[in-house]
This record gives sequence, structure tokens and C-alpha cells, in this order.
Amino acid sequence: MRIDVLTLFPEMFDGVFSSSILGKARDKGIVALNTVNFRDYANNKHNTVDDYPYGGGGGMVLKPEPIFAAVEDLSVHQEEGQEPVKPRVILMCPQGTPFTQKKAEELSNEQHLVFICGHYEGYDERIRQYLVTDELSIGDYVLTGGELPAMVVIDSVVRLLPGVLGNEMSAVTDSFSTGLLEYPHYTRPAKFRDWEVPDMLLSGHHENVRKWRRKESLFRTLERRPDLLEGRDLSKEEKTWVAEWHDRKQKE
Amino acid sequence: MRIDVLTLFPEMFDGVFSSSILGKARDKGIVALNTVNFRDYANNKHNTVDDYPYGGGGGMVLKPEPIFAAVEDLSVHQEEGQEPVKPRVILMCPQGTPFTQKKAEELSNEQHLVFICGHYEGYDERIRQYLVTDELSIGDYVLTGGELPAMVVIDSVVRLLPGVLGNEMSAVTDSFSTGLLEYPHYTRPAKFRDWEVPDMLLSGHHENVRKWRRKESLFRTLERRPDLLEGRDLSKEEKTWVAEWHDRKQKE
Repeated sequence: MRIDVLTLFPEMFDGVFSSSILGKARDKGIVALNTVNFRDYANNKHNTVDDYPYGGGGGMVLKPEPIFAAVEDLSVHQEEGQEPVKPRVILMCPQGTPFTQKKAEELSNEQHLVFICGHYEGYDERIRQYLVTDELSIGDYVLTGGELPAMVVIDSVVRLLPGVLGNEMSAVTDSFSTGLLEYPHYTRPAKFRDWEVPDMLLSGHHENVRKWRRKESLFRTLERRPDLLEGRDLSKEEKTWVAEWHDRKQKE
Repeated sequence: MRIDVLTLFPEMFDGVFSSSILGKARDKGIVALNTVNFRDYANNKHNTVDDYPYGGGGGMVLKPEPIFAAVEDLSVHQEEGQEPVKPRVILMCPQGTPFTQKKAEELSNEQHLVFICGHYEGYDERIRQYLVTDELSIGDYVLTGGELPAMVVIDSVVRLLPGVLGNEMSAVTDSFSTGLLEYPHYTRPAKFRDWEVPDMLLSGHHENVRKWRRKESLFRTLERRPDLLEGRDLSKEEKTWVAEWHDRKQKE
């Protein structure tokens, strides 16, 4: 997979692209990660990439020319003699579709992703209409630019590529694969200050441990993210636990 | 404000903490941004910070001792003669409360934030129960660690601090302040390739431009994020536009 990021702040990506999973995936040749400063594609003597909005109002708007030119340049540089593969062109913006794990899986099947990151500015609407294939938002909060959201999407996509995750990465992080939040984890010491690990986990009774974990997972989801349970088919056992949880809540 | 980040990958933060708004806020002395490698607080000869989970299963779990020691060390280093201000201790994890703009505003009133970033591993439950004040999740997707989520929260909080945003940052980015998605923006050229800027924006009729923008904002929200309109009191004019939008949809 090849990933290009259009940004006015390429230096923001240095630490993230060279550390941890992204750095390893890059070193192994599984993914090529590039940043492109689209100011290099400004077609005017002042290297301007933004301009005032038509219709007035505050703020600046990113001009269409440099971004179209940069994306088209990236699309052309394919292997010779082969049909150019059209990249997915992803705009990071608060107006985008909320990013989900399902979207990460979909994007992980692509060969070439191009991310467009604005910073402060709005985007000329023609970029959205005629160049971009996906508009994504990572959440309903205001950020300074599209750079951090692009890093988030890239991390979640690259870790799904075959060969990227070793054994060090396990089910522990897969909170959303069961559709429930994770159960509590404990490790040594069995007693830290006054706080002890639940007896159940020290019992060595594997079947009971599994059951305790499934139940704690459900309880935590009921407590914190009941929205994740909407539309879920509960097993008979899970229904008993939901009833138990409601009982307990009523008594509190 | 002072922000400390506990992480095993401090180098991931270099580019982000020194660029753009965060870099400027730091240079102006508005915020102190520090990373702390909590491996330095490992109390064993192999510098181990994680261990196998009680009860079995895959994956490793972060031990309580190094993280408690690191946070307590950070809390003690306050000005002499003054009561130590207890920091907000924020754990980034998929099981956390969904992060919102309201939470960013709340956190921007604090004097000292400490972020705990796990990586691959789970957290010993005693860290959550007895050390952490807030568990936050930036969205329902799986990431390699808490580092990118911490950067996202830090960016959204720091840009709210007085003196951080200059005039370059405007209402353009404030998608969530009106509760609606942004209207389309256009800048020069008026004609790019075959695609023209809407006549309305070139008309110079300010009142009509304002109206067009409010309407487009509502239409875009209806199209992409109808959930944002739930529970909203619509004005008489907005109700007419909603009806117009539904009419148009039915004809499509």
C-alpha cells in the first residue's frame, strides 16, 4: 500500500511515521508513507495556497489549483506500462462521515490512499465535489487541522495490513471486535498497596474466569456505552446478567 | 497550563508538539508540554512495565507500580510553599467516555493535565480505579496506542486557551459552534476548469448570501449528520427549509 499525505505541516508526521507500528510497517516495506507539501504546487509567485472567501466572512479558503495539481501528480506516478490506479482521495474535515472500524477495514483493501489535510482554512467546494472520494471526520470536536485525524486513520488502517502486527499485539486491544467493551485486566503484584486482584482471577478455574470476564465486559458496556448494545441479540445468559445489573443499579 | 504525557514512545510527540498551534502556544509560554517515559519508573532490573494477565489469555497488561510512581512524581513537583494541585489524570482507552467538544472546554479550565498512553497492552484495573480521574475515547475504531488520541485531545484543549489562536483561526473551523455542519466555501478563481462558483456568492447581496449559507448549512447537516438535529429547536425559516429538503429528496 502507498499512502500520500498532502499537508502544509509535513514535519508533524516525522515522529509518528517513524515510530512503533507505522515505523515497522514502513521498514518491512508493507507500506510507503509520504508527505507532500502542497505549497510546492502553488501556481503563483507568492506560493499562496489560500484566498478570501467569495461572499465575504472571516477565515481563508484553500484554493483548488494546488490541491488538484498535487493529487494529479501523485496519481500519474504509477508503474510504466500499467493503467494508473486511481487513488482514494480522502479529505479530513468536521463535515465528513464519522470514521469507524468498518471504514478502516474497507480502506485497508486499497492500494493507494491520498489524504488532504487542511489547517485553519476551509476547502474550496470544488475540491470536495470533483476530486475527493471520501470525506471523513474522526469525531465531534474541533481540531486545528486535518493532520492528527489523518494520522489516526492511517494508524488504524495500516495495523490491519497483513504482516504488520506481530504477536505483541493481541486481542487486548480489540475492544470493538466482540461489540462489547473490554473486561478489567489485572497483573502482578496480586496486592498493590491495599488493592487486591479479585480472587476469581487467582482461582485457576478457567471456565469461571471466562464467565466472569464475559459478565464484566457486559456490565462495563451497560455502564458506559449502552448505545453499543442497541440491536444486539443477547444470549439467555447475557439476559440474566442484564437483569442482574438493573437490579443492582436500582438498589444503589 | 501544564501537560505531561506518560508514554513508552515519547519520540512520537516531537513533530506535533513543536509545529503549528501547539508549537506556538509552547513558545509563547501559554502551555508547557512534556513527555515522560514511564519505563524510567520501572522498579525492577529489567525495566519491565508490563506482565502477563491474571486469569490467563493473550496480551500483556501494564503494571500499576511504574505508572503510579510517575504520576505521583509529577504531582509533587509543584511550586514550593504552595499546596500541590492535583492533576487531572486522563487515561486514553477504547473503553473511555466518548470525547466531545464540551469535554475539551471543561479540560481547558484545568491547570495540570496528565495523560497516560498505553500501547498494545491493557491497563491493570487498579490504575483506572485509584489513579485516573477521566477515561476518554476519541472514537469507535482500533488504534495501536493512546498516543495519537492524547495528541488529539491536547490539540483541541490547547487551542481553547486564551491567547493561543490568532486572527488566522476563524469561525471557519468552528463547525460545532452553531450545531450545524459548515456551508460550502468558495474562493478564486470564479471558474476553475468547468466548475463555477455559485452566482449567489458573486452577487454582493450580503443578506442573501447569509441566508444561502444558513440554508446550505442545514441541508448539509440533513444530508450527512441528521443526528446533530435531534432535540434542536428549529426556527420557522429552518422548518420551511427542512420541508423543502424532504420534497427535493422525494423527487430524486
